[in-house]
Amino acid sequence: MINIGIVGYGNLGKGVETALQHLPDIQCLALFTRRDPKQLQSTTTLHCESVMDAIKYQQSIDVMIMCGGSAHDLKEQSPAFAKNFCIVDSFDTHALIPQHFANVHQSTKKNQTTALISAGWDPGLFSIQRVMNEAILPQGQSHTFWGKGVSQGHSEAIKNIEGVIEAKQYTIPLKSAMKAARASLSPVLTTRQKHRRVCYVVAKKTANKSAIKNQIITMKDYFANYQTTVHFISMETFQKDHQSFAHGGSVIHNAPSDPLEPHLQSIEYQVRLSSNPSFTGHVMCAYARAIYRLHQEGIIGCKTVFDIPPSYLHPLPQSDLLSYLL
Amino acid sequence: MINIGIVGYGNLGKGVETALQHLPDIQCLALFTRRDPKQLQSTTTLHCESVMDAIKYQQSIDVMIMCGGSAHDLKEQSPAFAKNFCIVDSFDTHALIPQHFANVHQSTKKNQTTALISAGWDPGLFSIQRVMNEAILPQGQSHTFWGKGVSQGHSEAIKNIEGVIEAKQYTIPLKSAMKAARASLSPVLTTRQKHRRVCYVVAKKTANKSAIKNQIITMKDYFANYQTTVHFISMETFQKDHQSFAHGGSVIHNAPSDPLEPHLQSIEYQVRLSSNPSFTGHVMCAYARAIYRLHQEGIIGCKTVFDIPPSYLHPLPQSDLLSYLL
Repeated sequence: MINIGIVGYGNLGKGVETALQHLPDIQCLALFTRRDPKQLQSTTTLHCESVMDAIKYQQSIDVMIMCGGSAHDLKEQSPAFAKNFCIVDSFDTHALIPQHFANVHQSTKKNQTTALISAGWDPGLFSIQRVMNEAILPQGQSHTFWGKGVSQGHSEAIKNIEGVIEAKQYTIPLKSAMKAARASLSPVLTTRQKHRRVCYVVAKKTANKSAIKNQIITMKDYFANYQTTVHFISMETFQKDHQSFAHGGSVIHNAPSDPLEPHLQSIEYQVRLSSNPSFTGHVMCAYARAIYRLHQEGIIGCKTVFDIPPSYLHPLPQSDLLSYLL
Repeated sequence: MINIGIVGYGNLGKGVETALQHLPDIQCLALFTRRDPKQLQSTTTLHCESVMDAIKYQQSIDVMIMCGGSAHDLKEQSPAFAKNFCIVDSFDTHALIPQHFANVHQSTKKNQTTALISAGWDPGLFSIQRVMNEAILPQGQSHTFWGKGVSQGHSEAIKNIEGVIEAKQYTIPLKSAMKAARASLSPVLTTRQKHRRVCYVVAKKTANKSAIKNQIITMKDYFANYQTTVHFISMETFQKDHQSFAHGGSVIHNAPSDPLEPHLQSIEYQVRLSSNPSFTGHVMCAYARAIYRLHQEGIIGCKTVFDIPPSYLHPLPQSDLLSYLL
């Protein structure tokens, strides 16, 4: 039995809680929160603790699943927890991954822990597709599309702006671009040609809406390179129309089969999700299993999905995988 | 530079030759054949040698890519070559994989070599999907579909029957089954409900066609569990209408997002190939790169795609993968 802890009880923390119902080999010893654990206790059957008391579980928790947001929480929390625990996070700010990796890797040295950053579907499962596609058909090109769906990271980034009460950001792929990626050999598609971003924001009555809008559309790494639309709406509309966690996306890779042959070799990976945070929670639990096993083998340091053999994710032993799944 | 050898120059051997044009870090030192190497030399720019002389290359070839068929060649050749070389094969008789694995693993002990069996798209890339899907969404179910396309393994199996001159076997997925796999949570689909197999056979004039047909449709592991149709055709028709190497397939996995929630979490992986043997050749080269690296690290024994971290397949170092592809 693998003993995990969950740090943070937002949508992703709840997603991990959901995933655990399907995983007989993983159990949660405690949910750690910055809120009052006594109040949180009424909303979950998991045992709640203050994040300040996590250290008491250093000997009993095998892997901490970090469920904070990338914009603020994980940057600090993952390196802090990796000093004392094996961790898995879903850090998703692509441009800042190398620095985050270096910070977490440094922390793992203190107590010989094992960590895995950026588990989820993108970064995560989609990253694996990009690496494998390029390794197998280097003469081709991978295009990644997201949506339509809410990006938790982008919504969180908006919510962290002064004056914003609530926000949802929808990423929408442009059909013309998906068609070009599927049908042509090497379409040139800029970031702006592939997706647009639509934001629904509930602001404080006193807030300067045009300043908020400006902060959103100029936000580096998140919105600056996209065609972004911002709608200010009431809390009533927000609660009525913007509660879906549906999302999806594809990685499409095309290559010529032969220099003399114009026909395509094509690989497409697609997810269609009714609940994005629940799915990400499931992915994180599978990688927690892998990190537990690596740590048992004495392998320490920061890892990514690129370092994990598929067999480490699955609960069955090698002989069963060979017989039933190869 | 990774030095490889190619054993066998059928469609798959030619596929590996094609792949090498796109791989600056891999070169072929020699192509080994059971035919007369002098005659083969006129059909390829690769250096040809008799398979009997392979041992001369024991020190210079890093990985042998085994390009024979599963039905007869690989069962003997892979264990034989693994005694003296690191090897990659594409053994694709699912039911016999555990025994083949054990045989090759035993051989690797003789000279501390490293081997990988069953590289390709199925078994291979599709197997990885099945393992990861089950690890991530164990409450769901994966369905694999193949076709429409020629199965090299099945065609080879027919060609090995006494009296058969040429044969092509098309695997055809049943649309009703694919629809059920995409739309429903846990459709019950038998082997027979998912695919049918259509065979085009050129037989010797003197051959007993009904005996050939019977041998095909009762062949264990290959045809016995399917609705199989056999057409006897002339060599002229065969050469005119049955030269395409196109193939394709999908692994579709559906799961409920939550016990209380009827909506689906869905993962689909799809390949659409203008040339099946060329694609399999590309996959084998990427796994040859991984096996070369594992062997350099001192890891020996027989492996499968389940044991290989994605980063081992890609020529770029970890820091580049983190920056550009995660």
